[in-house]
Amino acid sequence: MNTLVFDVNETLLDLAHLDPLFEDVFGSSQVRKEWFSQVILDATVVTLTDTYADFATIGVSAFKLVAARREVEVSEEDFGRVVAGMRSLPPHPEVDVQLKRLYDKGFKLVTLTNSPPAMVAAQLDNAGISKYFQQQISVDAVKAFKPAAKVYDHAASELSEDPNQLWLIAAHNWDTSGAIAAGWNAAFIARPGCRISSLDAQPQIVGSSLVEVVDELIKLKES
Amino acid sequence: MNTLVFDVNETLLDLAHLDPLFEDVFGSSQVRKEWFSQVILDATVVTLTDTYADFATIGVSAFKLVAARREVEVSEEDFGRVVAGMRSLPPHPEVDVQLKRLYDKGFKLVTLTNSPPAMVAAQLDNAGISKYFQQQISVDAVKAFKPAAKVYDHAASELSEDPNQLWLIAAHNWDTSGAIAAGWNAAFIARPGCRISSLDAQPQIVGSSLVEVVDELIKLKES
Repeated sequence: MNTLVFDVNETLLDLAHLDPLFEDVFGSSQVRKEWFSQVILDATVVTLTDTYADFATIGVSAFKLVAARREVEVSEEDFGRVVAGMRSLPPHPEVDVQLKRLYDKGFKLVTLTNSPPAMVAAQLDNAGISKYFQQQISVDAVKAFKPAAKVYDHAASELSEDPNQLWLIAAHNWDTSGAIAAGWNAAFIARPGCRISSLDAQPQIVGSSLVEVVDELIKLKES
Repeated sequence: MNTLVFDVNETLLDLAHLDPLFEDVFGSSQVRKEWFSQVILDATVVTLTDTYADFATIGVSAFKLVAARREVEVSEEDFGRVVAGMRSLPPHPEVDVQLKRLYDKGFKLVTLTNSPPAMVAAQLDNAGISKYFQQQISVDAVKAFKPAAKVYDHAASELSEDPNQLWLIAAHNWDTSGAIAAGWNAAFIARPGCRISSLDAQPQIVGSSLVEVVDELIKLKES
């Protein structure tokens, strides 16, 4: 094992950075979770109906939908804040140190995200973690979102590696399940609110934090 | 226009019937909405990863996932209550009268639901509305959920009709979008919490209630 493919939003970057926006607009930061669930659902829906729009566009349309559902008036300025917020998410506190551990052990680190190329480049730069990644792969090239098989197949092809040599690291069960269905290995980070369901394929590694997952990955590489 | 294809859960049947169960287990009936969103997401995920499980199974696995996320202990008995609750949802109060209006006007009424065949038969019987439907079509035959194109294609084939002759009636934007992407017409019922997003294909009819949608359908047939 050598190549680790990281999901970005929520896995490495902290969506809680958007809480003040949702507190401000909807009166509750809890609505941020409703919004992100809607974003993920809409990404799967445009994939199934073959009507791809990029992740920032989906972020805004989901925001409008949540507002319409809650009968809250929102403005162009709010939409700008959603996109700016998504581009400037900070890393979770442990991320920099844990990526450095993997990097120093000689792993090849790559990202595979639903965000379009310009957005993920800005996200990783703003979070100060671009330096760890040799390659940034976006779903945008195949106009479909994770967990569609063609996204993982595209990444394997970009990396010129066999699926069974690749590891996906994510905090989302639908992402680890998609990777496993495509023949990859997967490690799941059980961040707060993130759990594996009884229908999911079991990831080879499950840790309660990125630290635990990195411990296991290093142990496996050295075994 | 003659054949109207109805979605069932939430469109005709009232999910609020499950609220006491969620109040009892989670201390809040609001969790029912989180659960149903999770059910819909999981249905799209198993479709994208080609790991179909039937809708009752997904109902239970989503229930377990929500419980794990909220760190609430749940039992086999609770799972039984979820499935029994899904099978015995009452119709929304206006449904019987409005289906009768369409039936009396000579429309052919059909259901197309994510529920498996035995479940939808029980659901329509328990709701007292089976008598209006000439045919019950389930996604189960194609092992994929709405809004995948092959579900609508399967229904058109079962009905021996051209997609552009068919109307889907639903309270879910992902369902109307799926139908439109498959070449159907669609009517959207904007039940509370149900809205069209800015990414969705625009349904030919949008009503704030089933009554409004039925008015429009009858007007179109008679025009």
